[in-house]
Amino acid sequence: MKILVSNDDGIYSQGIYALVQSLKEIGDVTVVAPAKEQSAVGHAITMQIPLRVTKTFKNGEFFGYAVNGTPADCVKIGIRNIMQQPPDLMVSGINHGSNTAINIIYSGTVSAAREAAIMDVPSIAISVTNHEASNFDFAAKVAKTLALETAGKDLPLGTLLNVNVPDIPEEDIAGIILTRQGKSKWDDIYEQRVDPYGKDYYWLKGNLLEVDKDIETDQAAIRNNYVSVSPIHFDLTDYDTFNKMKTWNIEGLLNGKKF
Amino acid sequence: MKILVSNDDGIYSQGIYALVQSLKEIGDVTVVAPAKEQSAVGHAITMQIPLRVTKTFKNGEFFGYAVNGTPADCVKIGIRNIMQQPPDLMVSGINHGSNTAINIIYSGTVSAAREAAIMDVPSIAISVTNHEASNFDFAAKVAKTLALETAGKDLPLGTLLNVNVPDIPEEDIAGIILTRQGKSKWDDIYEQRVDPYGKDYYWLKGNLLEVDKDIETDQAAIRNNYVSVSPIHFDLTDYDTFNKMKTWNIEGLLNGKKF
Repeated sequence: MKILVSNDDGIYSQGIYALVQSLKEIGDVTVVAPAKEQSAVGHAITMQIPLRVTKTFKNGEFFGYAVNGTPADCVKIGIRNIMQQPPDLMVSGINHGSNTAINIIYSGTVSAAREAAIMDVPSIAISVTNHEASNFDFAAKVAKTLALETAGKDLPLGTLLNVNVPDIPEEDIAGIILTRQGKSKWDDIYEQRVDPYGKDYYWLKGNLLEVDKDIETDQAAIRNNYVSVSPIHFDLTDYDTFNKMKTWNIEGLLNGKKF
Repeated sequence: MKILVSNDDGIYSQGIYALVQSLKEIGDVTVVAPAKEQSAVGHAITMQIPLRVTKTFKNGEFFGYAVNGTPADCVKIGIRNIMQQPPDLMVSGINHGSNTAINIIYSGTVSAAREAAIMDVPSIAISVTNHEASNFDFAAKVAKTLALETAGKDLPLGTLLNVNVPDIPEEDIAGIILTRQGKSKWDDIYEQRVDPYGKDYYWLKGNLLEVDKDIETDQAAIRNNYVSVSPIHFDLTDYDTFNKMKTWNIEGLLNGKKF
């Protein structure tokens, strides 16, 4: 099994190293990851500047390719130019911090896996629920297990698995559960400060407002010590509203009346 | 009607100026937009560096607030700190270039409107289908008409309208149509080049592979000279796969068998 690995914390992060060590036990792993941290970059791609690809080493051995771009860039160039053919699987992570509920929208980790899904490559995004996580061993095992599971099932083209692992001792994990994206959001606050030259600047902070109670949502699952596994896709159409809007008579807006 | 306007081409672009002139006829407009072009940034947000807010002027008059961040940043800080209360409507654009099919994923224009939707503000993203577009008058009229239309209807919280306007003379517009996100994608190619110092670099190019034939998809609609209006949301759960995956027995993976 050929596996492409990327992330958004950068090629030198602990999480990607643990992931690669684990996936090497089941496949031939190619690492293409951002040269620098790219958290919260969403699904950005680089078009206005060229990309550079640099070989990186860990403990004296070749580890992977660093790219001066975003997670989505890494997946695109990894598949098109470095591997030169689609891998059997793409895995993104292990992210330092959860990617549940609204965070899926902002996440570079998820966008890397989503870019693979766009390219018809089955993919998994995996995160540990703590920015300060220091032990990725259990999450790396989960990634390996789900990689094997995904290879044996037919995940539809264009769908990826978004996996979140509580940062607690393995023996305290309650189980693993199929989930959907939760509805928890941030109460964003920009703290206003004054710089040494007397000018204002603003720094984003905030708390996640936990509204998810149903254990079948990713956010409630991790809060209850479950590993969450959510299938997500990139069709953003709101079909319920699409159907309701048929009564809006959008087509009538152009009939000389309003324009 | 209080309206927040942003975009991804930057506060000095032609498209946002045309949009603001048009929306001023129906509401009280506040402009908060990126200081520099932010195309294809996806739903990136800025957390590692502070934001600066600068007043900008056009033709000697105050025009709006420039932010050294992404479109999503502009909407967040625009609502939280500049307007200090949610507007009645947020409009993003007018983008120079279409945001249909897979481009919705990469778009900064759409992410600005989506950030507003996340904050429970009804929103519209509007784009003209040509990066070199020079006349935004018709699209600006469409934006105004849809702004009034949206104000009069109940767009569900969390849903935004993604609007694309063909860059053709107004008399050649075939109509306006309710659409869903198309499935057309890019055949990404990284052109490999050598810099003056003998080092390789890669530059993304590609063509959109048009697979959409159904006129009810955004991509087919604009190709057939229709203005497309797609309701989109930020729940990325793939519910079909969610239901199918119940047969995977994900919960069984942890029962001592595989871990």
